[in-house]
Amino acid sequence: MMLINDKTSAELISVAHEMADAARAAILPFFRTTSLNTENKLDDGFDPVTVADRAAEEAMREVLTKRRPQDGVLGEEFGAQEGTSGLTWVLDPIDGTRGFISGTPTWGVLIAASDETGPVLGVVDQPYIGERFFGGFGIAERSGPHGAMPLKTKDTSELFDAILFTTFPEVGTPDERAAFERVSENAQLTRYGMDCYAYALVAAGQVDLVIEAGLNAYDIQGPIGVIQAAGGVVTDWEGNPAHEGGRVLAAANAEIHAKALEILRKS
Amino acid sequence: MMLINDKTSAELISVAHEMADAARAAILPFFRTTSLNTENKLDDGFDPVTVADRAAEEAMREVLTKRRPQDGVLGEEFGAQEGTSGLTWVLDPIDGTRGFISGTPTWGVLIAASDETGPVLGVVDQPYIGERFFGGFGIAERSGPHGAMPLKTKDTSELFDAILFTTFPEVGTPDERAAFERVSENAQLTRYGMDCYAYALVAAGQVDLVIEAGLNAYDIQGPIGVIQAAGGVVTDWEGNPAHEGGRVLAAANAEIHAKALEILRKS
Repeated sequence: MMLINDKTSAELISVAHEMADAARAAILPFFRTTSLNTENKLDDGFDPVTVADRAAEEAMREVLTKRRPQDGVLGEEFGAQEGTSGLTWVLDPIDGTRGFISGTPTWGVLIAASDETGPVLGVVDQPYIGERFFGGFGIAERSGPHGAMPLKTKDTSELFDAILFTTFPEVGTPDERAAFERVSENAQLTRYGMDCYAYALVAAGQVDLVIEAGLNAYDIQGPIGVIQAAGGVVTDWEGNPAHEGGRVLAAANAEIHAKALEILRKS
Repeated sequence: MMLINDKTSAELISVAHEMADAARAAILPFFRTTSLNTENKLDDGFDPVTVADRAAEEAMREVLTKRRPQDGVLGEEFGAQEGTSGLTWVLDPIDGTRGFISGTPTWGVLIAASDETGPVLGVVDQPYIGERFFGGFGIAERSGPHGAMPLKTKDTSELFDAILFTTFPEVGTPDERAAFERVSENAQLTRYGMDCYAYALVAAGQVDLVIEAGLNAYDIQGPIGVIQAAGGVVTDWEGNPAHEGGRVLAAANAEIHAKALEILRKS
């Protein structure tokens, strides 16, 4: 991981909050309106892009152009732009667009600042609730409608005590679904539908495991930054780094991570 | 439905808001704490009752003792108490206890004032977000972090345009699950995990259908009051009144209700 001095880390933290604020302002006028300009990105599926999605990424890129022009950018909507600093901002302006169009408060703005080894800083922001989960440079904090508090993952050590989340029961391919279900059978409780908010709940010490598949880098780097800062572990289903996306296992701690990983590996 | 004059309806509205405020105050100190006193109500399942659940129902019953002692009460935690007015308050202090212990903002306080034909007033309140969905006596309104606005259901007329919710993919018995899946196959989008918040989203014009099974009266009467006031239709899977619980179909309007009902009936 690259060395970042205190002055730069303070700047990166400030830039991340400014970006999240800008994204909130861009998105909220479009949330729960009935005139969303939804498009289908995939011919065979339902993956709407909203006006809000594009407006929020543009707003975040404007902050970067002004404050960190030396950094690279990788965004869901407008692709990759190289930088010279060794840092890249990885952005998903609205993670959980299906939740967004359904009006649920479970989608989020995902922001990470990453070097080639992964995120050094992560943000998961839920604009409607007004809740922000931040992790990086020794800080792990949630701010929201009931004030600010530190983020700290749970110390659950047994799968039969664990709360497991994924966004939809299909998970991915039939094999991926079967692997997920083998973990689920051993968990105390399995819940669905939280989009990126499930990762925030791992960081907040509420949820033990999130298992998903088919993710992109921008879907997971913000959550990785937050969860790692709060004491959790995020890898792929082989135990390798997950910041490029794919199959992801996010866990509250190393012990519960190892137990879930063992089942996923056997599958 | 019993006749209720303007003075009484204004009082009932005021009492409902006071009860919801009291429940919020009772619950929030326990949300996202790690020391919840959870008990299992069912030997074979996972249905925790929290301290917060009991404290909130007690707080709501105190409001009724003071302001509407003539009304009956039916609460999830402390059972039924007869009244003399012909009205009964039907209370679920925390609907979605699994969501509550997982930290999701999808559980809610459910309140209805009902005569024998069903709710005349309903409330779905989400204390963490600070969001309240109210319906009754010509009012259908949401208040929350971004102000107040009227509730109005969607005018979706075709299942292939519909957004469908249920809380967990099992739904109920294998037959009930199969019936749900036949509707789901015809819908545009199916989502899970929202607890009572899904019903609020029908009232708010975001979601077209919620289909669940195995409900109790106190799980559905608050939502019925809100959805009906916002223009929606709630019945059981045979098209009969749903206020006693069981299998529930909540729909944005009569047309989409009829189309979903046709599939459920055939199943």
